[in-house]
Amino acid sequence: MIFLFTDFGAEGPYLGQVKAVLSGMAPGVQAIDLVSNAPSADPESSAGLLGALSQYLPSDCVVLGVVDPGVGGIRDPVVVRADGRWLVGPDNGLFDGVTARAEEVVRYVIQWRPARLSASFHGRDLFAPVAARVAVGNLTGLVRNVEGPQRAVPAPDIDRVIYFDIYGNAFTGRRYSVALKRRRLVVNGHMLSFARTFCDVASGCAFWYRNSIDLVEIAVNSGSAKTDLGLQIGTIIEWTD
Amino acid sequence: MIFLFTDFGAEGPYLGQVKAVLSGMAPGVQAIDLVSNAPSADPESSAGLLGALSQYLPSDCVVLGVVDPGVGGIRDPVVVRADGRWLVGPDNGLFDGVTARAEEVVRYVIQWRPARLSASFHGRDLFAPVAARVAVGNLTGLVRNVEGPQRAVPAPDIDRVIYFDIYGNAFTGRRYSVALKRRRLVVNGHMLSFARTFCDVASGCAFWYRNSIDLVEIAVNSGSAKTDLGLQIGTIIEWTD
Amino acid sequence: MIFLFTDFGAEGPYLGQVKAVLSGMAPGVQAIDLVSNAPSADPESSAGLLGALSQYLPSDCVVLGVVDPGVGGIRDPVVVRADGRWLVGPDNGLFDGVTARAEEVVRYVIQWRPARLSASFHGRDLFAPVAARVAVGNLTGLVRNVEGPQRAVPAPDIDRVIYFDIYGNAFTGRRYSVALKRRRLVVNGHMLSFARTFCDVASGCAFWYRNSIDLVEIAVNSGSAKTDLGLQIGTIIEWTD
Repeated sequence: MIFLFTDFGAEGPYLGQVKAVLSGMAPGVQAIDLVSNAPSADPESSAGLLGALSQYLPSDCVVLGVVDPGVGGIRDPVVVRADGRWLVGPDNGLFDGVTARAEEVVRYVIQWRPARLSASFHGRDLFAPVAARVAVGNLTGLVRNVEGPQRAVPAPDIDRVIYFDIYGNAFTGRRYSVALKRRRLVVNGHMLSFARTFCDVASGCAFWYRNSIDLVEIAVNSGSAKTDLGLQIGTIIEWTD
Repeated sequence: MIFLFTDFGAEGPYLGQVKAVLSGMAPGVQAIDLVSNAPSADPESSAGLLGALSQYLPSDCVVLGVVDPGVGGIRDPVVVRADGRWLVGPDNGLFDGVTARAEEVVRYVIQWRPARLSASFHGRDLFAPVAARVAVGNLTGLVRNVEGPQRAVPAPDIDRVIYFDIYGNAFTGRRYSVALKRRRLVVNGHMLSFARTFCDVASGCAFWYRNSIDLVEIAVNSGSAKTDLGLQIGTIIEWTD
Repeated sequence: MIFLFTDFGAEGPYLGQVKAVLSGMAPGVQAIDLVSNAPSADPESSAGLLGALSQYLPSDCVVLGVVDPGVGGIRDPVVVRADGRWLVGPDNGLFDGVTARAEEVVRYVIQWRPARLSASFHGRDLFAPVAARVAVGNLTGLVRNVEGPQRAVPAPDIDRVIYFDIYGNAFTGRRYSVALKRRRLVVNGHMLSFARTFCDVASGCAFWYRNSIDLVEIAVNSGSAKTDLGLQIGTIIEWTD
């Protein structure tokens, strides 16, 4: 199974071209859109989201990750193995959240280049063919090992807003832990208490909770945290008693 | 074939996680996004849309329906059989439009619970595994029958706007019938006549017509009914001669 | 492989219904969303985009193309063979960009009609069944040949903005050629030089480049050409030394 984690949007011309390549080179392997609205040109926030999501992906999947403001520049294209999962994409920090949650990490640099490589769409020309090859288990001549296997280095939490879902809920890069539960979250001048879920607070009330991928999330019951609290990607969160 | 009818959005992190579960538990069964922008937190409007759509779905399909403002609260998770079609989701009225159009309805409550059940994402944790089990024909130990088989109770039409498509056309919850054809529809102070289709009215002209899923729809040729007539989900429609 | 090129949006109720038909009539044939936000009701701009994309599609694919402001009116439904690729949709110019890039073109008019044909959704009722039949290689009784095989007539370039991607980059309908490289592009009072890619210009700088489907594209590094330069679909471009 190949998961696509990108900032390509669902409607545009990019995802379909990537899937055409995958389908041609790895026939019968399912390609699933995991996230198509990753924080654009923001590999660090994207890494926080992808890392949290990765725990909910099959343990032997391939993730084709493309949030790649440096496309056409000098960053390396890489394949990373984090426990059983394979990650294919640019070496710009996008996979740090996944590797931080893994036991063992191996890094490879992609050496192979396609006959035709556009300056702006390595997702289609470079990463999709490599992801397809990884999915069918054929890495011969594709990559060279640069690091590991070695124990992963835990990544620090990201104490800011990293993503908004369609309801305007704000994902932060802070991993939930039981110790946080009795603390209050301060964001943009608002002080929010923990609640288990939406039904536990009054309509219009802002709170923080453990979301479905184990991140601290800011929400407003029957409202939009983004709009109602004036949040944006990057807004800092702090903790108080 | 499993159809996904949700308010999750196409781009966010929710649909992909649901599909990962379906693909793992019901391999080879196709999952198709039917609607990803159902009226959010509005099961009644969503029911009007899903009911009308259901006539155009294969007669033996599974619909995984999640418009679920009460997630984490006390509403039951259910499986409903409406003629040959299976519906899996929350018991909050979301399936009333489908059952109203069926001959025979059977209702089950889902008894099974996953080892790990998040407070906010039953789509992934509870409904997707059940839908996958339904799709492969294995309901053993999953549900208990609570009602039926019995004849369905017809649902009343919903005389208001229930959905906007991408063009700004306004779907109402009123089912088309020939008797309506010579009547005028009154909405937000505008009085609209019937037309067969866009080509039959002048550019900029507002009208109502029988849409492709047999609902009364309000449209403006080369315009947006939503913007041009100031409509929103819930705007009341009335009929006059 | 069937590619869907439409202005239906990714989230609404249209694509899913089309895929249900395809999946039922051409089981095992993959349907891929290529573009779901084609310039709405604008077959000419859409044709510029689809033509450029077609070079990157498998040489024996089927394209189901629906940008169809005249649905329900008098335009013919057609099947076009452009070299190995099959195109199914309305005869309104939508396929001109593909045929202009082909060696040999054959045109057919669709004679078959479904038992139930809605006035507004030929994508589901007419084009999807035909595309499915084309994909499984069974055109018997479906179409009559009206033109060709004959050499394609090259289409002129379209010197205006035809599409915006999710980043606000503006695709034009002008095909890239080496001769253009030292010329400047004038749009909305701005004069833009060529750059190879985003990394080659300063942040905030507007430029034009050869995009990944070989069209001239207008972009702003770390910005939105659409917003920053005040562009819209149809904005004229000119060339100067």
